[in-house]
Amino acid sequence: MRVVVNAAMSADGKLSSRRRTQVAISGPADFERVDRLRSASDAVVVGVGTVLADDPHLTLDDPSEPQPARVVADSRARTPLDARVLDDAAPTYLLVSEAAPADRLAALRDRATLVVAGAERVDLPAAFEALAADGLDRLMVEGGGELIFSLFEDGLVDELSVYVGSTLVGGRDAPTLADGDGFVESFPKLELTSVERIDDGVLLRWEPVD
Amino acid sequence: MRVVVNAAMSADGKLSSRRRTQVAISGPADFERVDRLRSASDAVVVGVGTVLADDPHLTLDDPSEPQPARVVADSRARTPLDARVLDDAAPTYLLVSEAAPADRLAALRDRATLVVAGAERVDLPAAFEALAADGLDRLMVEGGGELIFSLFEDGLVDELSVYVGSTLVGGRDAPTLADGDGFVESFPKLELTSVERIDDGVLLRWEPVD
Repeated sequence: MRVVVNAAMSADGKLSSRRRTQVAISGPADFERVDRLRSASDAVVVGVGTVLADDPHLTLDDPSEPQPARVVADSRARTPLDARVLDDAAPTYLLVSEAAPADRLAALRDRATLVVAGAERVDLPAAFEALAADGLDRLMVEGGGELIFSLFEDGLVDELSVYVGSTLVGGRDAPTLADGDGFVESFPKLELTSVERIDDGVLLRWEPVD
Repeated sequence: MRVVVNAAMSADGKLSSRRRTQVAISGPADFERVDRLRSASDAVVVGVGTVLADDPHLTLDDPSEPQPARVVADSRARTPLDARVLDDAAPTYLLVSEAAPADRLAALRDRATLVVAGAERVDLPAAFEALAADGLDRLMVEGGGELIFSLFEDGLVDELSVYVGSTLVGGRDAPTLADGDGFVESFPKLELTSVERIDDGVLLRWEPVD
């Protein structure tokens, strides 16, 4: 399995404003790059916070192309039944924990494949293994910051690709590229593998160093 | 007056961990660049949060060189009397508000030049004008995120130069490059003026677009 994290952040590391409204960070050339990256992936993965805030569709621009699966890390099964990610444009997986309410699971079962792993929070390594067993080997993670941090905590990231846009968002409570509790004693070391100007920003690519 | 903001952040936009302990973000070549930038400035400016967390000296590596002044934005005059920034290695200015306690001001008056501007919080445009009147025209701001956000809010930034290091810090409560309340409706637009690999990271330079 190969896990690529791809996200766009402002010059100060924010994914959106503190109100969680989307901010125009990247431009047309980067959108196209993201579409190509999705197209080369078996599945596009987001956290439920992103579904609740943005209601993304996570499909390719060209609906006639074979679509990657959509995966939502959603410990408590909070994905709304009318979320766009649950429509029939592509198969969808919900990664839930054993703490997810039974009525939510019953309601969602028709609309998505449920992967149950972990007691209170979804056990990401186990859930990703279940995805791999279903043939989903190339995962592209698009955020948000809580999921991205958890993936680094679990050592599941093979590549981090960040578009840094030319705008400033600010806000001590605005979502950042990696939220969660944060590392405090040792910090994952990365290797910068490429730097490329795209639109009016820059795309930085890193690989974790073991 | 020319105000350059210069800071080092992790790949995810953090200045330090949520415990506010310093994280090794940049390397020797960047330290040297920062020293040269300080040397070309009339004053080095930080917020009091940075003084309280890191107790920086803000002087040049070579003590025989003429030192830039040190400036602390410190609305409530919380700079400790034994802060390194108050030693006699260089002149120091404290930018305080009218809400700063009189006993703190009395204690600090011998150790620094006090600039009083603003009622509850320091009025940065007025305080910077006072610095300019004292011949401090080239200001280099080194953080932290609260001060940097305030400067963007007040439209005082002429250049933003950010070293992005190859490490991940994470943490929804970790200090970021621009904290404060954050922008919510319109966001300052920047122009990326240079991209340069330094040490194992990358230096990005922006100028605000009016």
